[in-house]
Amino acid sequence: MKLFKTLAPMCALIALPSMGLAEEAVPGTDASSDSIYIFNSLLFLIGGFLVFWMAAGFAMLEAGLVRSKNVTMQLTKNVALFAFAAVAYYLVGYNLMYPLGNWSIGSDETGGYLGAFGVAVLEAVGVTRDAADDYGYAATGSDFFFQMMFCAATASIVSGTLAERIKLWPFLIFTVILTGIIYPIQASWKWGGGFLDSQYGFLDFAGSTVVHSVGGWAALAGALLLGPRIGKYKDGRVIPMLGSNLPLATLGTFILWLGWFGFNGGSQLAMGTVGDVTDVSRIFANTNAAAAGGAIAALLLTQALYKKSDLTMILNGALAGLVSITAEPLTPTLGAATLIGAVGGVIVVFAVPFLDKLKIDDVVGAIPVHLMAGIWGTMAVLLTNSDATFMGQLMPIIIVGVFVFAVSFVLWFILKVTMGIRVGEEEEITGLDMAELGMEAYPEFKKG
Amino acid sequence: MKLFKTLAPMCALIALPSMGLAEEAVPGTDASSDSIYIFNSLLFLIGGFLVFWMAAGFAMLEAGLVRSKNVTMQLTKNVALFAFAAVAYYLVGYNLMYPLGNWSIGSDETGGYLGAFGVAVLEAVGVTRDAADDYGYAATGSDFFFQMMFCAATASIVSGTLAERIKLWPFLIFTVILTGIIYPIQASWKWGGGFLDSQYGFLDFAGSTVVHSVGGWAALAGALLLGPRIGKYKDGRVIPMLGSNLPLATLGTFILWLGWFGFNGGSQLAMGTVGDVTDVSRIFANTNAAAAGGAIAALLLTQALYKKSDLTMILNGALAGLVSITAEPLTPTLGAATLIGAVGGVIVVFAVPFLDKLKIDDVVGAIPVHLMAGIWGTMAVLLTNSDATFMGQLMPIIIVGVFVFAVSFVLWFILKVTMGIRVGEEEEITGLDMAELGMEAYPEFKKG
Amino acid sequence: MKLFKTLAPMCALIALPSMGLAEEAVPGTDASSDSIYIFNSLLFLIGGFLVFWMAAGFAMLEAGLVRSKNVTMQLTKNVALFAFAAVAYYLVGYNLMYPLGNWSIGSDETGGYLGAFGVAVLEAVGVTRDAADDYGYAATGSDFFFQMMFCAATASIVSGTLAERIKLWPFLIFTVILTGIIYPIQASWKWGGGFLDSQYGFLDFAGSTVVHSVGGWAALAGALLLGPRIGKYKDGRVIPMLGSNLPLATLGTFILWLGWFGFNGGSQLAMGTVGDVTDVSRIFANTNAAAAGGAIAALLLTQALYKKSDLTMILNGALAGLVSITAEPLTPTLGAATLIGAVGGVIVVFAVPFLDKLKIDDVVGAIPVHLMAGIWGTMAVLLTNSDATFMGQLMPIIIVGVFVFAVSFVLWFILKVTMGIRVGEEEEITGLDMAELGMEAYPEFKKG
Repeated sequence: MKLFKTLAPMCALIALPSMGLAEEAVPGTDASSDSIYIFNSLLFLIGGFLVFWMAAGFAMLEAGLVRSKNVTMQLTKNVALFAFAAVAYYLVGYNLMYPLGNWSIGSDETGGYLGAFGVAVLEAVGVTRDAADDYGYAATGSDFFFQMMFCAATASIVSGTLAERIKLWPFLIFTVILTGIIYPIQASWKWGGGFLDSQYGFLDFAGSTVVHSVGGWAALAGALLLGPRIGKYKDGRVIPMLGSNLPLATLGTFILWLGWFGFNGGSQLAMGTVGDVTDVSRIFANTNAAAAGGAIAALLLTQALYKKSDLTMILNGALAGLVSITAEPLTPTLGAATLIGAVGGVIVVFAVPFLDKLKIDDVVGAIPVHLMAGIWGTMAVLLTNSDATFMGQLMPIIIVGVFVFAVSFVLWFILKVTMGIRVGEEEEITGLDMAELGMEAYPEFKKG
Repeated sequence: MKLFKTLAPMCALIALPSMGLAEEAVPGTDASSDSIYIFNSLLFLIGGFLVFWMAAGFAMLEAGLVRSKNVTMQLTKNVALFAFAAVAYYLVGYNLMYPLGNWSIGSDETGGYLGAFGVAVLEAVGVTRDAADDYGYAATGSDFFFQMMFCAATASIVSGTLAERIKLWPFLIFTVILTGIIYPIQASWKWGGGFLDSQYGFLDFAGSTVVHSVGGWAALAGALLLGPRIGKYKDGRVIPMLGSNLPLATLGTFILWLGWFGFNGGSQLAMGTVGDVTDVSRIFANTNAAAAGGAIAALLLTQALYKKSDLTMILNGALAGLVSITAEPLTPTLGAATLIGAVGGVIVVFAVPFLDKLKIDDVVGAIPVHLMAGIWGTMAVLLTNSDATFMGQLMPIIIVGVFVFAVSFVLWFILKVTMGIRVGEEEEITGLDMAELGMEAYPEFKKG
Repeated sequence: MKLFKTLAPMCALIALPSMGLAEEAVPGTDASSDSIYIFNSLLFLIGGFLVFWMAAGFAMLEAGLVRSKNVTMQLTKNVALFAFAAVAYYLVGYNLMYPLGNWSIGSDETGGYLGAFGVAVLEAVGVTRDAADDYGYAATGSDFFFQMMFCAATASIVSGTLAERIKLWPFLIFTVILTGIIYPIQASWKWGGGFLDSQYGFLDFAGSTVVHSVGGWAALAGALLLGPRIGKYKDGRVIPMLGSNLPLATLGTFILWLGWFGFNGGSQLAMGTVGDVTDVSRIFANTNAAAAGGAIAALLLTQALYKKSDLTMILNGALAGLVSITAEPLTPTLGAATLIGAVGGVIVVFAVPFLDKLKIDDVVGAIPVHLMAGIWGTMAVLLTNSDATFMGQLMPIIIVGVFVFAVSFVLWFILKVTMGIRVGEEEEITGLDMAELGMEAYPEFKKG
């Protein structure tokens, strides 16, 4: 095994034939403080546009997995939820999430529970070092841009589960409250320096819990109150309702996979030092490894169980692998990352039929992917990061879960008893596209 | 309101708990001059590939909004126009647009009117500081790459309006002249330091006028000479001709939205200082806000007017929001950016039926989105940038509009009387895919 | 011509009116050694995620070009091959390809033939300069991430050629061996500093041979053993089997085009100096020019030959242009790059029917695009790079070709006689989606 060891510190030789391995202390020069600020901001900008791209990924994934009569509605929801999330996060969410110590309830010392109220304000044009909000970190605009995309991703998770039967407007109202209030509050508990961070030592690098399980809990609450689609569960059997466009679903998965490099890599929050950029690189490589592990696990397992590989399971397996590595994409080795992702893939293959047994109708499998693999990923931090403690991971999972599920349930319930959340039976059978929007996604293709 | 104020200079606390707000002059070190050059060049490369991606966005948007019998043709036009634009901009356009003072007509002092003739030449391989074209700025290759993409975007706008009835070759000939000559000449007036820049103090940050309205004017001239599609306007009624693939149109919109971060952000032209990268960050955030504003405005307005949300309007609303913020994505606050974008969304909702009343058949709504919102965006600079003057904005809008519309009209007219620009009636009814190309986009899907 | 010359060293004037051309030695400051390391790593991360995106491009291109009854299978193969490639490259490939002098057979001096065995190991978390694998270069994680994507791209090439008739599992087994062993071994010969690099002076900047022709040779070997699709060649005629979704194929091409900026640009392997980032910029611009040249050549040629422009040829023309410039994207001028790409486009137009004459059934045209244009591109290095020698280019093409073709042929043959590589006749006629996977890609669209 010695060979492996000596190979371990390795790099590509290409075009650098004379460059050897370091044998003594390497003299070097720091990036200037301006450069560090620029590198950090740039990481957020690149990470941010990659996470933005995930909005397209969710839209394509979900549009591909619903039946053709509900595609226009699914697209409408996905575009609209992103737009509302952008405004809600700007108006309320950002300062709720990052109160900078100005907690409305609690404090940095005793534990922060409710952040600050106020719209997001960016630095002035052409700002100088002195006037920068935090010269030692990054441009506020870059941070806002990056964080806003995370908030929107949370809402995107919900739309998939509730597809094909929820009304447009109650869904959008829920989205506004989720992205403006629910998500930012619980995110402040960890990422804003609140009580989960300061009291529990909770570790959730890029949000297996803070983003993914939150979307999953909100979706679960909605699914329970909404009920399954007409005809989904009949005489004790589960009736398959096939996705109408698998290339679209595959494209969506690839988009999400790509976006996840920004999601996890950007969550390093810095790349202006050797250590930081090397960590970002580890994260990119591990994120990819986990997705691969999840896809392969789902492929092998569906082949073993059903004698047929199942593309939608493979896609969800890859996504579950990504969710699984999100709580800790940095500390695992490539091999560990692959295995952590693979477990995510296994979870999906078993959780999808399990939910069906419970008659919880999750159209795209978002609950298995984002909630269940999210819980797994959060606990899996214990495997590779010695700073994590069992209770420090478990309790926040429960606390966030109870909070988000309870608030979401109440909110969905209020929406249900006031304006109603479900379309009429006839509308559902006709399809939401014609019934609610009067616009077909594929008006010329004959349905068979 | 004090709370808001103290919150204003805010940043994320994540992982940086000990970092406070600046209280006294912050000592700092500049990025090295090499680093500044690298950062600037990198901004162009990233911005450039994002704007390249917009070519795919236009292709998908337009392919999704035409009827299935014209999809192959629409794709062919979009790929071909990009390729021709690349060559035309290389051979003629780049130096026409950036004469570096070598005006063929005019001068930097008296006002430049016609740039220089010559092919684009990049720096030598492995160039040194001394040999770099402009060491204080960025690599010429990165600048060329970035600017070439803008030129191509202009042509992409035209193809949507004229879809479903224009012949391939006249369209491509027009494209070559638009991208090689028309676009670069008028762009030189502002971005090449010409008379609109030096005499009018015209402000158009990333091209609401220079790019978007130019595409819109060229499209309008073509639409007038080409006439509406057969059957579009009948007995005083407007016959809807539905887009054949809305997921594709939505994907195209998301792609354009993503690309716009590069379009506007890259137009800062620098990110090697604290001020520049913070500005780029503002621009990213504002660009996103404006798109969200445009989408929400179109969503709410179509719901109010028609009792049904209209996905294609929402998509065009987002795009109109993006066009609206393009003339000044830097100075607005997030709130102002959202509102500027929202007005763009409102414009689209009213302009689309207005054009139909005039029997101007714009297949994808490119004239409302790019021309009308482009004019709005250019005037809206006055709202947030005190350097802008009313006449300094209005006159260039008119001058560019008259120039581009007139030259385009003459050119389309010449093409019409010589080779003809419109396919035969039978070909149009059959669809351009089979009639002109002999290749269906979806050969297996039965049309219903 | 003087005008052109004086224009040659040009840059954009925008917002920098006072900036003139350098007239004397420009004083400047190097980027710090940390910054250089960060810039280089960042180039790999950006390049890497762009090349990752090519996996989606291949998937969409191929899903669009096969018949609808085989789309789910094609998607499954593309997702699965990427996932397996990631694991194989991690477990075996990376150290086989970059043995850092630890050759299992051969040495840096006498020529390396077989690299090292061992899993890839990244730097520790939060590494310091001293502990970095190669502080003068880039983070190992970034290098691994980038190189892994190249390896996967090679496998993606194969799946297109063999579509619509090959069984899933033999294909995936082949993929694992291709990405874990075949690709890395031959890549080590050039990029790992092996005998093609040290003994032949072979030049292949980003892999016209090392990546593209390798994929092509592996595909050719498979196609020969697999035979053509049922009904493809009948009574001396070639029966067209039309792609089922041309927007998807076009999207795939645009994705690949975008990804290629990372593929070629990232292969500069550095951007921390003025020379390096300017070279990366040249490469971006040249890569785009070559794609444009290839698309235009195919457009004009099909119009001339068949009186109809052929979209699938234009798409493959663009891709062939990209493959053609890949061996040397740096030294050509923009004009030369356009022409080199154009020849690639011409090759495709003639090679596609030529293969059909030989009754080699290449479903998506991957052999013309990747193998034939790859050979052309590798030889075309001679035109613009004076360091290239005729035999130094030709011999490696032959050596790599013989090695990959022979090993692939034997491997396909073993798979054929053991588990069989082709689905049954009935399955093929039914389509692989229902026969092998039980899942249609477009279950609702009536086929006509």
